[in-house]
Amino acid sequence: MKTLTVDLGERSYPIFIGTNLIDRADLLAEYIGGQQVCIVTNDTVAKIYLPMLKRALGSREFEVQSVVLPDGEQYKNLDTLNLIFDELLKSRFNRTVTVIALGGGVVGDMAGFASACYQRGVSFIQIPTTLLSMVDSSVGGKTGVNHALGKNMIGAFYQPQAVVADVAALKTLPARELSAGVAEVIKYGIICDYDFFVWLEANIDRVMAGDANALSYCIERSCDNKARVVAQDEREGGIRAILNLGHTFGHAIETAQGYGNWLHGEAVGAGMVMALDLSQRMGLICEADLARATSLIERANLPVAAPENMSESQFIELMSVDKKVQDGRLRLVLVKQLGQAFVTSDIDRDLLSQTINACR
Amino acid sequence: MKTLTVDLGERSYPIFIGTNLIDRADLLAEYIGGQQVCIVTNDTVAKIYLPMLKRALGSREFEVQSVVLPDGEQYKNLDTLNLIFDELLKSRFNRTVTVIALGGGVVGDMAGFASACYQRGVSFIQIPTTLLSMVDSSVGGKTGVNHALGKNMIGAFYQPQAVVADVAALKTLPARELSAGVAEVIKYGIICDYDFFVWLEANIDRVMAGDANALSYCIERSCDNKARVVAQDEREGGIRAILNLGHTFGHAIETAQGYGNWLHGEAVGAGMVMALDLSQRMGLICEADLARATSLIERANLPVAAPENMSESQFIELMSVDKKVQDGRLRLVLVKQLGQAFVTSDIDRDLLSQTINACR
Repeated sequence: MKTLTVDLGERSYPIFIGTNLIDRADLLAEYIGGQQVCIVTNDTVAKIYLPMLKRALGSREFEVQSVVLPDGEQYKNLDTLNLIFDELLKSRFNRTVTVIALGGGVVGDMAGFASACYQRGVSFIQIPTTLLSMVDSSVGGKTGVNHALGKNMIGAFYQPQAVVADVAALKTLPARELSAGVAEVIKYGIICDYDFFVWLEANIDRVMAGDANALSYCIERSCDNKARVVAQDEREGGIRAILNLGHTFGHAIETAQGYGNWLHGEAVGAGMVMALDLSQRMGLICEADLARATSLIERANLPVAAPENMSESQFIELMSVDKKVQDGRLRLVLVKQLGQAFVTSDIDRDLLSQTINACR
Repeated sequence: MKTLTVDLGERSYPIFIGTNLIDRADLLAEYIGGQQVCIVTNDTVAKIYLPMLKRALGSREFEVQSVVLPDGEQYKNLDTLNLIFDELLKSRFNRTVTVIALGGGVVGDMAGFASACYQRGVSFIQIPTTLLSMVDSSVGGKTGVNHALGKNMIGAFYQPQAVVADVAALKTLPARELSAGVAEVIKYGIICDYDFFVWLEANIDRVMAGDANALSYCIERSCDNKARVVAQDEREGGIRAILNLGHTFGHAIETAQGYGNWLHGEAVGAGMVMALDLSQRMGLICEADLARATSLIERANLPVAAPENMSESQFIELMSVDKKVQDGRLRLVLVKQLGQAFVTSDIDRDLLSQTINACR
């Protein structure tokens, strides 16, 4: 087992990465303050891991309840969030409760946001079960739900007590979700870690085949990159925004297609290609680097273009409600060279149109 | 105009108390960061003050939108909260928006919570228009909504940029709401300010008659007390809990009667009498002090007993989901002597039963 730390002063917390950690109650117990535990999961993950986790916690005499949410991004909204509050209140759980998120990014985002809001804030622990949540969404404290008019528009910055990434859980992960996770892995290479990008070019086939060592390495390196960026800028006043490479394009795709039809990582895959395409058109990166990155994304079985049914005006419309917009000016993460991203609102609208029209 | 400060380090903010402040755009403009402003109000307050505030802000060239919520505690829930998100997103307002709460405690709690959650946190300003919100809910950063199973169960600690209390707004306040506000004013006397309690005994008739000087003094002294307590304990780890005198009993009444039937201040009036009655039964205060406090609450035209239709078991049931419960132990604010409250979980259940049965 490896341990990384997200260094946020009094809100610092560990990320544990290893195999067969889900029922390690000894590990979890250190981060559970009171006697009450509420596990939040979804109906897919519950079948595989919920009994194991419940038994482990029960053996330590915690009072354990669980909420099983419907599985899918389309349920990441205020109505589903309320199911968590219902369970917490029906169980009469108080401020000393610890919420455990057992599942992927949707479960983690909702359980984290519910923890931020229940009785104005209770403890929570992330047990991510998908690659995407292990390398990205479980780390850094971004929690929230979607609104019909925009993704992740309602939420909180709220840090967990600990993140427990069990690499063994990836054995049961569907191939499509593995790809979605690899999108965020590749992202770190492109935005801030060129050596890792090169490693990925050499090892992407092992990763896609589910090689445990290759996956562990991806998780460690991704979490390490994320932890460093988040420690510098917890509330995304500056540098943290580079973690959103491809996300403004991607959110537009997700919102337009209806939540749950494209996986988040798939939309990020296509979105990164669009951000790189625009970077190339703006003279920031050369065509060869655009081709290298596109090829890597393609080898991860990810889409490298937006859906054909989206018009340019729909793209612009949806991108302009993005959280990175400031006083009406669209801001995007672009790439100066592989391994070096930056945020800018200095965007040529004609070139943006060209990118949107070229990448479909 | 008087200015008090809530001293919370980098989250410090001023409370302005004076007359005819609502359309003082010069005052507000200092606390509005960007160009976008969203005013949240209710259908009662909107008729009186919304056009004035919109005009004032419009003259400073802010981009102003407004959301008019239905008036009443029964609408303080996630569904109504979503109306605020709808408006913010329809207006394409981004992270630089400032939300202004124009109204009473319900509007302030919901606008504040929406500000805490919209795009994971935007600025907000409180313009309280009721006595209760001026002396209590607009100060201190408690925001949130109710759940069918418990009051204020979903929320955040989130501080405003400024509080602007316009005493002139109290001229249009219905008598019943004035009484509800006076409940929280009397509370400060009982929990931490005996001199103020004595002042209130001497001046309660002027206050109830709407005397502007007497009301101004009540608001200043209440805010000053609240600001000092909140500065010591922003997130209610300890001393801040004394501000909840009467609230555990009161929340049980509000929840049982259906939100909006008893005003919050009315429930706090009866709840304070119950907390004092229990304090007397437990040998903490003498009968004479119980009688003095009860008389003052009665002179403010507030109920001094719970509704007859509530059973003892319903009381206990509803009190046991209160936020102050810790690992199953009920905690209450009791009174050692007038002007000195404390929090305890050392409660004699028999005496609690006696209080519940005596105070109906």
